[in-house]
Amino acid sequence: MSGRVREILSWYRSENPGVIANLARILNHGRLGGTGKMVILPVDQGFEHGPGRSFAPNPDGYDPLYHFRLALDAGCNAHAAPLGSIEMGAAEFAWRVPLILKANSHDVLYDEADPMPALTASVADALRLGCAGIGFTIYPGTRERRALYEDLRELVREAKAVGLVVVVWSYPRGSGLSKEGETAIDVVAYAAQIAAQMGATMIKVKLPSSHLELSAAAKAYERYQVPIATIAERVRHVVQSAFDGQRIVIFSGGPAKGDQEVLSEIRGIREGGGFGSIIGRNSFQRSRDEALAFLETVMRIYAGELA
Amino acid sequence: MSGRVREILSWYRSENPGVIANLARILNHGRLGGTGKMVILPVDQGFEHGPGRSFAPNPDGYDPLYHFRLALDAGCNAHAAPLGSIEMGAAEFAWRVPLILKANSHDVLYDEADPMPALTASVADALRLGCAGIGFTIYPGTRERRALYEDLRELVREAKAVGLVVVVWSYPRGSGLSKEGETAIDVVAYAAQIAAQMGATMIKVKLPSSHLELSAAAKAYERYQVPIATIAERVRHVVQSAFDGQRIVIFSGGPAKGDQEVLSEIRGIREGGGFGSIIGRNSFQRSRDEALAFLETVMRIYAGELA
Amino acid sequence: MSGRVREILSWYRSENPGVIANLARILNHGRLGGTGKMVILPVDQGFEHGPGRSFAPNPDGYDPLYHFRLALDAGCNAHAAPLGSIEMGAAEFAWRVPLILKANSHDVLYDEADPMPALTASVADALRLGCAGIGFTIYPGTRERRALYEDLRELVREAKAVGLVVVVWSYPRGSGLSKEGETAIDVVAYAAQIAAQMGATMIKVKLPSSHLELSAAAKAYERYQVPIATIAERVRHVVQSAFDGQRIVIFSGGPAKGDQEVLSEIRGIREGGGFGSIIGRNSFQRSRDEALAFLETVMRIYAGELA
Amino acid sequence: MSGRVREILSWYRSENPGVIANLARILNHGRLGGTGKMVILPVDQGFEHGPGRSFAPNPDGYDPLYHFRLALDAGCNAHAAPLGSIEMGAAEFAWRVPLILKANSHDVLYDEADPMPALTASVADALRLGCAGIGFTIYPGTRERRALYEDLRELVREAKAVGLVVVVWSYPRGSGLSKEGETAIDVVAYAAQIAAQMGATMIKVKLPSSHLELSAAAKAYERYQVPIATIAERVRHVVQSAFDGQRIVIFSGGPAKGDQEVLSEIRGIREGGGFGSIIGRNSFQRSRDEALAFLETVMRIYAGELA
Amino acid sequence: MSGRVREILSWYRSENPGVIANLARILNHGRLGGTGKMVILPVDQGFEHGPGRSFAPNPDGYDPLYHFRLALDAGCNAHAAPLGSIEMGAAEFAWRVPLILKANSHDVLYDEADPMPALTASVADALRLGCAGIGFTIYPGTRERRALYEDLRELVREAKAVGLVVVVWSYPRGSGLSKEGETAIDVVAYAAQIAAQMGATMIKVKLPSSHLELSAAAKAYERYQVPIATIAERVRHVVQSAFDGQRIVIFSGGPAKGDQEVLSEIRGIREGGGFGSIIGRNSFQRSRDEALAFLETVMRIYAGELA
Repeated sequence: MSGRVREILSWYRSENPGVIANLARILNHGRLGGTGKMVILPVDQGFEHGPGRSFAPNPDGYDPLYHFRLALDAGCNAHAAPLGSIEMGAAEFAWRVPLILKANSHDVLYDEADPMPALTASVADALRLGCAGIGFTIYPGTRERRALYEDLRELVREAKAVGLVVVVWSYPRGSGLSKEGETAIDVVAYAAQIAAQMGATMIKVKLPSSHLELSAAAKAYERYQVPIATIAERVRHVVQSAFDGQRIVIFSGGPAKGDQEVLSEIRGIREGGGFGSIIGRNSFQRSRDEALAFLETVMRIYAGELA
Repeated sequence: MSGRVREILSWYRSENPGVIANLARILNHGRLGGTGKMVILPVDQGFEHGPGRSFAPNPDGYDPLYHFRLALDAGCNAHAAPLGSIEMGAAEFAWRVPLILKANSHDVLYDEADPMPALTASVADALRLGCAGIGFTIYPGTRERRALYEDLRELVREAKAVGLVVVVWSYPRGSGLSKEGETAIDVVAYAAQIAAQMGATMIKVKLPSSHLELSAAAKAYERYQVPIATIAERVRHVVQSAFDGQRIVIFSGGPAKGDQEVLSEIRGIREGGGFGSIIGRNSFQRSRDEALAFLETVMRIYAGELA
Repeated sequence: MSGRVREILSWYRSENPGVIANLARILNHGRLGGTGKMVILPVDQGFEHGPGRSFAPNPDGYDPLYHFRLALDAGCNAHAAPLGSIEMGAAEFAWRVPLILKANSHDVLYDEADPMPALTASVADALRLGCAGIGFTIYPGTRERRALYEDLRELVREAKAVGLVVVVWSYPRGSGLSKEGETAIDVVAYAAQIAAQMGATMIKVKLPSSHLELSAAAKAYERYQVPIATIAERVRHVVQSAFDGQRIVIFSGGPAKGDQEVLSEIRGIREGGGFGSIIGRNSFQRSRDEALAFLETVMRIYAGELA
Repeated sequence: MSGRVREILSWYRSENPGVIANLARILNHGRLGGTGKMVILPVDQGFEHGPGRSFAPNPDGYDPLYHFRLALDAGCNAHAAPLGSIEMGAAEFAWRVPLILKANSHDVLYDEADPMPALTASVADALRLGCAGIGFTIYPGTRERRALYEDLRELVREAKAVGLVVVVWSYPRGSGLSKEGETAIDVVAYAAQIAAQMGATMIKVKLPSSHLELSAAAKAYERYQVPIATIAERVRHVVQSAFDGQRIVIFSGGPAKGDQEVLSEIRGIREGGGFGSIIGRNSFQRSRDEALAFLETVMRIYAGELA
Repeated sequence: MSGRVREILSWYRSENPGVIANLARILNHGRLGGTGKMVILPVDQGFEHGPGRSFAPNPDGYDPLYHFRLALDAGCNAHAAPLGSIEMGAAEFAWRVPLILKANSHDVLYDEADPMPALTASVADALRLGCAGIGFTIYPGTRERRALYEDLRELVREAKAVGLVVVVWSYPRGSGLSKEGETAIDVVAYAAQIAAQMGATMIKVKLPSSHLELSAAAKAYERYQVPIATIAERVRHVVQSAFDGQRIVIFSGGPAKGDQEVLSEIRGIREGGGFGSIIGRNSFQRSRDEALAFLETVMRIYAGELA
């Protein structure tokens, strides 16, 4: 085991050996294994956005097995998906690529100001399907976040007791925030802190903008001149907000966009001390060959093999 | 066991032998046994629409036993009904035709924009009554769908643990959708995906129209020219949306209409790769003799004996 | 045991011997024992309407023991009451007259469009108090009926597991219905169907009027010319709506009115194939002697000893 | 044990010996022990109204121990208080004066039309603290009374199973009632009936006025000329409404007022067959010496030693 | 053990030896050990206000370990923090400084009139992390306080059963109160009483102003001339409101302000008989050296070494 992985694991000394083992498994798997960096392939868009909108660009993606193979062949650290998808592929892939079962899900067939995902899988499901971890989405800023946090608390308790890693998608949303505020630097840093305080093993946030949403926070950022001008600075602040860099924070790519733009973001994440990326639509909404090439480039950047 | 049935069962390799056995029992039963196609007789209209409106056209239908006999004599793959009805006939019929216990129900004595069925039966009931499976209705698009999905999650967990097949009626409804949107192709495909992701063994949806309801989805359907002009094309897209054809999707007939229209829909379902139909009002709202003749025609189409 | 009682019990073959035994006990008790007809004395008006309004006409009724004695001496098949009343008399009467514990109750100190009774007793109470059955009121048409149906589902499961009969008071009410609609023939038939589907052993409804409340239902009643002009026809339709006469349906007398009117209703219930009556205010809001005489007349009609 | 106490206990023959023993303990304790009458000292005003407003008139009252001593020295039958207070004094006093633990509480820091107390102690607390009973407040007339009644049902079940007496404070309040209606004779009688039906061992109500709140009830009171002109008549009607006098009903004194007025009320309660009083503010909001003298006078009236 | 500590512990004689031992551990720890006074370092602002706003003034504070060390080196009686922070440092510090796990948390990403914290940690967490106690915030005055109080009741029960101290942050807030009312003397005294009645071992309130919020309370304060003009008088009244000084009440410092102002408040708390302070922002939002010096001054005042 590399020294960097040992260092990372040392931050989790309150966890039992089961959690440490699964976390090590993810950190040591694939192309970036041992570097302390990671790239995860998440495919929950079928539930979150609908199947046509998600998979029409590359119809191979309608088949859940396609994504397991892609994660495996690209050398991703893990593959994350909802229950039905994991059930399709777990028997073949659970021992070949670490799996993360998404435990809650949300659809867009009802448009609401304050969205709330539903619990759609359990810790028992993750265990019987051979997963290394379980994923859970919270929406800080949504009206009923209290129920959401309490569901997470239960999940964290149950999952860690049986040695599972808990990955929290901390996505600020809801009527408490402006649209721009959902990715504001103060809000994203806050979301990372909340996930860390609730016991997340790994935290997934969106790449933040330099916008400041909360006036009381803005005053502090300005007064103490917190650097937030560049992607790297903002990533650094978010990582700092998760126990001064002692929790794994990874960043999501958001909607498909130009490759150069994405790669430039990846460089920013690396420079700011981020731990990696979770890359969904930029992976599976292109052909398999293009996806493999693109992910290889991303991983080379994280591995420090490419500027 | 036919090769086609073996192929279908292979998609469910995460399930325990109990679930596989009951699924095989349904696939191998009746006139279409072994073809991989199925026709199911559902009779929940007494609860869903009221007894007079449902059974006045053919008063024999007031007696739950009538439907068990009809399903048996017509060679349907299974009979689905609520608790009280199943309790009337299970002792005589549970070993002669696979039974599916409807676990939730909804009435129309309170008119609401966002309907929510109530849990009206349990997995324990299905077991003591000798059922092969349990049915559950979700209304994607209804405001409180979160509670509904979470009830389904519990039911899926309990049912599969004891070897029961789970049939999900995935019927988009509620204030999140326009009336036309309830059967829009993007919405029905979405409903099939949600049911698949939640762990449904079999999925029942309404036959979709070519309407596109969600603007973000519509853009993708148009850009990538997803074919949705004919019934067969739409059925194919819905089936694709349930794990690229690796989950059983059957279609409901809707209100009684002209026989030729129904049979033409059946041909479209067959051509599009659908797995069969669930035919209620078109069966029991006519005389027994007419129903038997009509169901025989439907089954011959599915069996490929009739163009 | 009479052939008629055997026939009735044959409809309940999904029930365990405990339920069958208690049902037989009720059917075989009192003046109408063995006839397949029944008259039950319910006294829940102290809770439902208030003590003064209920018992001022005959102050003996303030004492719960009075009603046990009246039910016994009049030869009623059973006595139904809430927890406190049953606790007063169970030690003396539980072995002399079948008791039905009302498990939920509602008061009128808060006036609401969508009433909801509260659970006020449990299956464990019914057992320790020696009851033969448990009673539960549902209000189809009330906004939160989902919670109500789910409470009933639990109660049915628990009660039958320990051999108790479940009597469902199915009283359509709530903002989903007009005042007139609460006793409309289509609505009362629907209420009987819902109770039957939920597993009620016995169903209590109000005597319906010829009004049709639901337009979709009205069309079917008119098109298929369902006979609903007379009390007997309406009773026949309600009984038919409860599994084609294979569930026990009894009718409530409503507010005290002229004796001749009540007796004429009793004749209609008998003629229409109803199983009997539940007679509260017409029993205990007159003197004991008058009540005994009146109940004797009612029972003679049901027994076929009086035209 | 006096004949009167034996008679009272005979009304509770459905209860287990544990409940009977604790009820006997309360009936036989103190100055009025054995008379069948009782005076209880309740001190929950610190929670219900706030400490300053409750104890500023006599600052000794800030100390919970003061009230235990007062109840003991005055010869009260029991002392009732919330969890924290009982925890202060139970070790010293639980074996010297029967204690009643208030299981729910309400504060006035949020002003609402439909108040709901919170559960603030449990049956397990009452047992570990050596209490003879547990107290619970219901507000018939408040919108969410259903939840309140269901909490009470659970408490009654748990408490009686372990031999505790259940004292129900039945205080009509909430948007279902006018201010005057909260103490209307029909409403208070109704509140006593509800508590009795829910299984209360002892019932505490406010002394009613002659106002009639509910029009349907008013008609019956007028038609049957129920006597409600004097305090004694109204007390008699309330006692009658609790199972024709077969449940212990005691009356609360309300806010501190002139002694003569209070004593005249006490005489009315005695004359009407009431079982006693629960006297809080009129006890602890005056000096200890005055309180002892005042309570002695009250008890002499109840004992029949004073006109 | 000092006589003062023995005296304090004597007020808690209803508690089991486990609770007494942990309370003694806190009272006997650090610079003020044995004096009966205490200073606690709480750091929950990362969750409550956001990380940037809380830690930008002194970025060392992003690291949870920094606070454990500060609490230890300053000689605080205990350190309180949310789950994630405690998990970071418990293995190293749990045996060196008493830890208090905050069991519920609230963020400001959704602005609401009636705030409700979420449960974010459990008694089981506190035990596995070696904590001496558990902390819980209530907001008397918030609309749903009932749910909050009931969560606290459960927590108190569970925590004390395993020997944990329960510290209640009793912070009046919500639409029931004006902004000024949140720190009004009558309201803060009321908040202390509520926490005491619910079984808090230690109570934390804000330093009150002389404002009177509730009109019914104001009348009593004025009529009985309760002294509330000075800090010391108000502290004395709050302490009196927590069982006449027989519950530990400590005061929070509020936002960072001039040192002299804070120290003058500390003198007032001491003079009024308060048990100490909980000092967060005034500790960690300055450099470590300044914080150590400042806390030393505060402790010398409490120890009586400084006027």
